[in-house]
Amino acid sequence: MKYLHTMVRVTDLDASLDFYCNKLGLDVVGRNDYESGRFTLVYLAAPGDYAAQVELTYNWDPEPYPMGRAFGHIAYEVDDIYAICTRLMESGVVINRPPRDGRMAFIRSPDNVSVELLQKGGAQPPREPWKSMVNIGQW
Amino acid sequence: MKYLHTMVRVTDLDASLDFYCNKLGLDVVGRNDYESGRFTLVYLAAPGDYAAQVELTYNWDPEPYPMGRAFGHIAYEVDDIYAICTRLMESGVVINRPPRDGRMAFIRSPDNVSVELLQKGGAQPPREPWKSMVNIGQW
Repeated sequence: MKYLHTMVRVTDLDASLDFYCNKLGLDVVGRNDYESGRFTLVYLAAPGDYAAQVELTYNWDPEPYPMGRAFGHIAYEVDDIYAICTRLMESGVVINRPPRDGRMAFIRSPDNVSVELLQKGGAQPPREPWKSMVNIGQW
Repeated sequence: MKYLHTMVRVTDLDASLDFYCNKLGLDVVGRNDYESGRFTLVYLAAPGDYAAQVELTYNWDPEPYPMGRAFGHIAYEVDDIYAICTRLMESGVVINRPPRDGRMAFIRSPDNVSVELLQKGGAQPPREPWKSMVNIGQW
């Protein structure tokens, strides 16, 4: 038995690919467009860990995707939490929970999916500007 | 970079552990009880694939966890989709989408988290009673 993926629905595929790939750094490892069902599936995975994936479902006919409370977040281990948070901020992503402790950060996808980033190997030494950075919104 | 887990909130930890472990077959690979924060985290993983996990968050003070539409499901590859669906049915789990095609089934957790089961290596030959089994509810 093996974990394959977590599926999330997205309202804007281009915005989602920009977030998950260009900003967060995941790779597209598969894509299927289903003309008759009018939906597209895109599979994303972390570089170096293609076994565990996120499946984006994009329905061509728009519908709202409210975020419930039952699902919490998806989490990735990252090599350098300061480096990825810097890149995310510079590309316009809000760091909802900055890595004040050098260990943990939270951001949100364009559809409000909460994404946790955790420093590989434990915490880095706390460092400015992160140490003094305040929370923004919920995650 | 590496996928770590998907977090879901649960209202009844015992019922959730019964579903995810006794019925679905996942292993508990970690558990932390946080007295001061009044919550418990339990980490679950498929036997043979501890890298990719599900994190259950159980808040000791009850609150509702409505299921939105943004998150879709979590998916596992299984060795024998008929065997696991038989075990699930016999333990009282509704097979919302029976594996009529020998390839894919959907069930739901006690908190309505949709779980996809996919046959390893592609479809098994379609077989009764699965072939004629109708869908039940949504997934």
